[in-house]
Amino acid sequence: MKKKVVLAFSGGLDTSFCCIYLTKDRDLEVHSVIVNTGGFSDQELKEIEKRAYALGVTSHSVVDETENYYESCIKYLIFGNVLKNSTYPLSVSAERVSQATAIANYVKKIGADYVAHGSTGAGNDQVRFDMIFNIMIPGVEIITPIRDLKLSREAEIEYLNKHGVEYTAEKARYSINKGIWGTSVGGKETLTSNQTLPEEAWPTQVSETKERDIELTFEKGELVGIDGEKLSPVKAIQKLQEIAQPYGIGRDIHVGDTIIGIKGRVGFEAAAPIIIIKAHHTLEKHTLTKWQLSWKDQLSTFYGNWLHEGQFHDPVMRNMEAFLADTQETVSGKVFVKLLPYRFQVVGIESEHDLMSNKFGSYGEMNNSWSGEDVKGFSKIFGNQTMIYHRVNEKK
Amino acid sequence: MKKKVVLAFSGGLDTSFCCIYLTKDRDLEVHSVIVNTGGFSDQELKEIEKRAYALGVTSHSVVDETENYYESCIKYLIFGNVLKNSTYPLSVSAERVSQATAIANYVKKIGADYVAHGSTGAGNDQVRFDMIFNIMIPGVEIITPIRDLKLSREAEIEYLNKHGVEYTAEKARYSINKGIWGTSVGGKETLTSNQTLPEEAWPTQVSETKERDIELTFEKGELVGIDGEKLSPVKAIQKLQEIAQPYGIGRDIHVGDTIIGIKGRVGFEAAAPIIIIKAHHTLEKHTLTKWQLSWKDQLSTFYGNWLHEGQFHDPVMRNMEAFLADTQETVSGKVFVKLLPYRFQVVGIESEHDLMSNKFGSYGEMNNSWSGEDVKGFSKIFGNQTMIYHRVNEKK
Amino acid sequence: MKKKVVLAFSGGLDTSFCCIYLTKDRDLEVHSVIVNTGGFSDQELKEIEKRAYALGVTSHSVVDETENYYESCIKYLIFGNVLKNSTYPLSVSAERVSQATAIANYVKKIGADYVAHGSTGAGNDQVRFDMIFNIMIPGVEIITPIRDLKLSREAEIEYLNKHGVEYTAEKARYSINKGIWGTSVGGKETLTSNQTLPEEAWPTQVSETKERDIELTFEKGELVGIDGEKLSPVKAIQKLQEIAQPYGIGRDIHVGDTIIGIKGRVGFEAAAPIIIIKAHHTLEKHTLTKWQLSWKDQLSTFYGNWLHEGQFHDPVMRNMEAFLADTQETVSGKVFVKLLPYRFQVVGIESEHDLMSNKFGSYGEMNNSWSGEDVKGFSKIFGNQTMIYHRVNEKK
Amino acid sequence: MKKKVVLAFSGGLDTSFCCIYLTKDRDLEVHSVIVNTGGFSDQELKEIEKRAYALGVTSHSVVDETENYYESCIKYLIFGNVLKNSTYPLSVSAERVSQATAIANYVKKIGADYVAHGSTGAGNDQVRFDMIFNIMIPGVEIITPIRDLKLSREAEIEYLNKHGVEYTAEKARYSINKGIWGTSVGGKETLTSNQTLPEEAWPTQVSETKERDIELTFEKGELVGIDGEKLSPVKAIQKLQEIAQPYGIGRDIHVGDTIIGIKGRVGFEAAAPIIIIKAHHTLEKHTLTKWQLSWKDQLSTFYGNWLHEGQFHDPVMRNMEAFLADTQETVSGKVFVKLLPYRFQVVGIESEHDLMSNKFGSYGEMNNSWSGEDVKGFSKIFGNQTMIYHRVNEKK
Repeated sequence: MKKKVVLAFSGGLDTSFCCIYLTKDRDLEVHSVIVNTGGFSDQELKEIEKRAYALGVTSHSVVDETENYYESCIKYLIFGNVLKNSTYPLSVSAERVSQATAIANYVKKIGADYVAHGSTGAGNDQVRFDMIFNIMIPGVEIITPIRDLKLSREAEIEYLNKHGVEYTAEKARYSINKGIWGTSVGGKETLTSNQTLPEEAWPTQVSETKERDIELTFEKGELVGIDGEKLSPVKAIQKLQEIAQPYGIGRDIHVGDTIIGIKGRVGFEAAAPIIIIKAHHTLEKHTLTKWQLSWKDQLSTFYGNWLHEGQFHDPVMRNMEAFLADTQETVSGKVFVKLLPYRFQVVGIESEHDLMSNKFGSYGEMNNSWSGEDVKGFSKIFGNQTMIYHRVNEKK
Repeated sequence: MKKKVVLAFSGGLDTSFCCIYLTKDRDLEVHSVIVNTGGFSDQELKEIEKRAYALGVTSHSVVDETENYYESCIKYLIFGNVLKNSTYPLSVSAERVSQATAIANYVKKIGADYVAHGSTGAGNDQVRFDMIFNIMIPGVEIITPIRDLKLSREAEIEYLNKHGVEYTAEKARYSINKGIWGTSVGGKETLTSNQTLPEEAWPTQVSETKERDIELTFEKGELVGIDGEKLSPVKAIQKLQEIAQPYGIGRDIHVGDTIIGIKGRVGFEAAAPIIIIKAHHTLEKHTLTKWQLSWKDQLSTFYGNWLHEGQFHDPVMRNMEAFLADTQETVSGKVFVKLLPYRFQVVGIESEHDLMSNKFGSYGEMNNSWSGEDVKGFSKIFGNQTMIYHRVNEKK
Repeated sequence: MKKKVVLAFSGGLDTSFCCIYLTKDRDLEVHSVIVNTGGFSDQELKEIEKRAYALGVTSHSVVDETENYYESCIKYLIFGNVLKNSTYPLSVSAERVSQATAIANYVKKIGADYVAHGSTGAGNDQVRFDMIFNIMIPGVEIITPIRDLKLSREAEIEYLNKHGVEYTAEKARYSINKGIWGTSVGGKETLTSNQTLPEEAWPTQVSETKERDIELTFEKGELVGIDGEKLSPVKAIQKLQEIAQPYGIGRDIHVGDTIIGIKGRVGFEAAAPIIIIKAHHTLEKHTLTKWQLSWKDQLSTFYGNWLHEGQFHDPVMRNMEAFLADTQETVSGKVFVKLLPYRFQVVGIESEHDLMSNKFGSYGEMNNSWSGEDVKGFSKIFGNQTMIYHRVNEKK
Repeated sequence: MKKKVVLAFSGGLDTSFCCIYLTKDRDLEVHSVIVNTGGFSDQELKEIEKRAYALGVTSHSVVDETENYYESCIKYLIFGNVLKNSTYPLSVSAERVSQATAIANYVKKIGADYVAHGSTGAGNDQVRFDMIFNIMIPGVEIITPIRDLKLSREAEIEYLNKHGVEYTAEKARYSINKGIWGTSVGGKETLTSNQTLPEEAWPTQVSETKERDIELTFEKGELVGIDGEKLSPVKAIQKLQEIAQPYGIGRDIHVGDTIIGIKGRVGFEAAAPIIIIKAHHTLEKHTLTKWQLSWKDQLSTFYGNWLHEGQFHDPVMRNMEAFLADTQETVSGKVFVKLLPYRFQVVGIESEHDLMSNKFGSYGEMNNSWSGEDVKGFSKIFGNQTMIYHRVNEKK
């Protein structure tokens, strides 16, 4: 009886090669699986399935992780306003971790002997897949044909053709990865330090130019409504993306540290993530105390980086999620946003938890709760130690 | 002989009131001083001087702090990419600290018995002035007529008129504070949580719409050139502001924690600060290591907040400046920026310290310095502890 | 009808003075209350009650906060291994916060118009009481006779005598404060920088010299057993204190920053807190991951300092407690401790969550899960960025 | 002509094996080098040299790194009061980094083609050596015979004997590593979680029992005198160690995270490091501001961990050293310490920078610089935000 391998399959050249290679050269029974994190349409999934069977897999499965991805990860990226290096919503990083986890669970489910992924040896994904498999399915051997064989694109195509699989040599100019938390764009300019992506490289071209006001409703930190319509968080993200991406909002280039130590650069368009994070952050600035804001920042910066490095299963991540969730108790209310071509503006917020609100009287009255004398006293004590320091240490 | 008071003078209603009050009601010899941190033109300074003498001051001085303000403070805000709550370049916060320090030095210089400022009891400035005076000139009594007397605008005007000083009752719709590191705009909408400033409220109206490319040259973290022209950092900031503000770049609203615990909201336009910080940060992402970036963030977030709270003279601020300055050794190179109406884009960078650069061969070759096997080993060890954790703690 | 004042009463000179002063000079109906946080015996409480009634209070109440104090505060100090400046278990700081909170609740319960405490103007307690009252019972006026009147000890005694209350002038050489989380000792030497407390100043004299082994059982971070006997956490702390304090363990002097900016020095004996924290920390070093340990440290350092400064009611404290509690899931097991005169030793631990444990094979076998090649690869990638940094920046 | 290999040589079994192996099996010209970081006497160094030549090395060198080790590393461990997990002075971790760096420099100096070390595949040292060599001498191939061949102790001895080298099979019960910053002890009990080292396992047996007072003089954070005698920092550390270790001070067991993810346990005796750090820390508590202490802690915790993980050459370490050095400006004065069997006590300090000192009057007078009213005002403002938070969010 042949041994089973689960292959993380995307339908592209590399994983198509893996299908044949694992079947023919490694004599394994290939079970391909694709994890949808919101980036694939039903139509696309069907075509990928067709392709998998055409490549001779024993079984092909689609795991829909979108809801679970939101619940276990994206939610906390919103709670933490996570933008890596103040820029990147971790679109691909978070998705890979979610996919690797789902694949590991699938391996357990069908009791496979091997797990294979199509990562090359140059990027972050290989580490995320390897590490999460090592952690979650430690007895299962990992096969990485692309990384190990280091074949050129041409050699892979030749190999496929040789095995009766047609594959055209044309290559997309940019490599694109789409998911619910943003779409990445890499190639040509992103491989340099000094050039940016041209207009035509962006997956979503700008087709909206009419200024538009929208209203986002948050409940305990989660986006649950747009313009008064109640929506599940996943639906709300998708709808906002649909509305806002045609404005060209949320495009940027991230330069960052890969897990393997080199610097990498990637373009992304992520209208919904960027708008949600800025809107949510504004709501928090109104509803949380200074030190809640400060510690949320510190924890979520680490949370984002550690997730980026594939370390999602370190229990410290669960501890941080407990912290973040606990901070969201009062982060409820509406945020008003104006969409414009290539940019947006957070107009303001409304919340019964607004610490700027003057529930108990007007701003002036609140102010009456302290006096000029109080502030004088405060200033004296607040600067007391530094005053002493300077008196003790002044040059004699 | 009368006792001397140094009055921080701006020429506005409050400090005009103070002039008369200190002279007449407190029987003091008033020495007015205005500290220029880049916000006043020579013309404006002359008019303020004229006004001071008209109000009967014994002497009036202008202290030009712009260079010193840059050297002792702004420089580090750039090194640290400081944006309070990811938004506000601390335009007013930093300026007040610089002004209070300059005034304290002036008090020492002329040996005054008192120091007076026109702050009200509702904001941050009172704490900054009080505290820095307490620290730097602990023997000198602080007089704060506006805070103590709590007079209405009308009462102040009546008092001035009574003492033969003309003052018209018209009030600017927005209170504006201009300095080299940005201009703040407060009033009407900023007093609410849900409205934003209208187009006409912005001090600089948008008059440029033509896309423009500029090149910023940084040397050890400091901006020293624009489009190939060498400039002192102060001149470079001023020139960039002149070029970019007419595009409407760097406008935003900051919602933040005041020193006295209430939330406050303020508009600002700060094209040069925002562009410089984003450009500088991009250069750093290319030239610094992951942990340099991470620790710079942590320290400079505190640095910004502590400065905002007026604690500039805490020696920990000097320690942090030593850290920040030390990180800038390799932050040199060019940053390419595209200006567009209401927004800008960092196109890319060029630096001989670029860690993405492939001085020693192409990107591919650098990649040859490790193998797929190396990454496999890395992934195994990097996830080792979490793997052990899950095996030890898995449900039996 | 007279207005009601709740007085935080300890039975000492200052609060005795307050009793009379509030009754006679302020014409208030005095309701004295004492909050027991584990420092008073029934006998002592009875005598304090007798004294209160002798001083003419309308009512006297004892609030036993020990359990609640443990549940809402001490528990987290253990979870966080909190030692201020690596030394002080916050014995008094934590207790005051707990007492102030209990008193505020008592004020609400009986609907008092005023609340009074006997703090002087020189220490931390005044801030803790004032601030917690401002936060929890904002409409209730705070009266602080000792701070306001600045009477000498002699003047207070004279005042008491004048009102028919006997009070002897003899003063204890050291001021002592006892609670379940440690006893503080201040006076004479602690007012200097260069002297330490003499043997006779310590409240518990050393009477045990025989080496003794004890076994502490922790369950999810809480001490629930000693030497095999199951105990509630409060009982366990008390029992350990009884066993270990006669060895002279946990004595030290803390030099720290008061809330009001001056440095302060205080002696303390806290055998149980110090042993529990070191034992608990050792258990954690075996059962938590590197980053759990690291973040626990960061959060709990802040938690301790912010508690010390009386800011217990900032919601960020609840968020941190959520984090800390979440980390304790696997902190269960036994810790073996040896008690010796003036010191103790953590001998070791036993836990089914021990990450050093070799549940799945011997240490050697676990080791077999990676190879020398893996570590070579790891070392290459782990140092990759620094290698690139040095190559890019080496002097040409 | 044979190629050159530099071998990090200690004279023990493993590196003796390497000598022969590199000469015979790899046909290399072996240049052995030993880096002294204060752990070897001249006598010991001579014997090691004799042994090296007996094993047939082409050259043998001793690099004395003690001074340089202090200047580049130990100094900052003192400035930062670095104790890993609040326990371990990083005795071995810091030493290995210093040795690896010195060896890399030696490789450059003699232009060797290879570098070899005798680390096994189970610990931290292999990563430190590999990584520092990768960083500092990237073109030089690393040979690790012990890790690669995985020979048993017996097999190594047999191999040596076969090549005419005598080696007795007796093995020390504990493996001991001595350096200026402490001596580590591993074996038997340290391989378990629940046992501690027996008295006889400690390298320095307790021979002093007479209480002794000593006076340590610090200048800008460095120990420069003992009992009034001026000494270089290195000499001062060595002298203090000589005085204090016979008391059995500074013995403990560290349980920590290895670089490779497993937990490790090691005993150490480090009287001088532990006393110096506690004394230095006490001096700092008197002379630095609250936030200086706080940030020093945060940075130096990372500094220690990152050093432990061999990442000494990350430029962020230089940035942190700049910070730490800058904080030491006022850390000068005397610290009084009492030595007792198995423990010591910091009695107190004397410093002209003491912030508890009352240079400008007595403690009482300093206190006069603020009033009860000031503290009332402070308490009101300091708790203002939390008060607002609770009022806004109280259950209606």
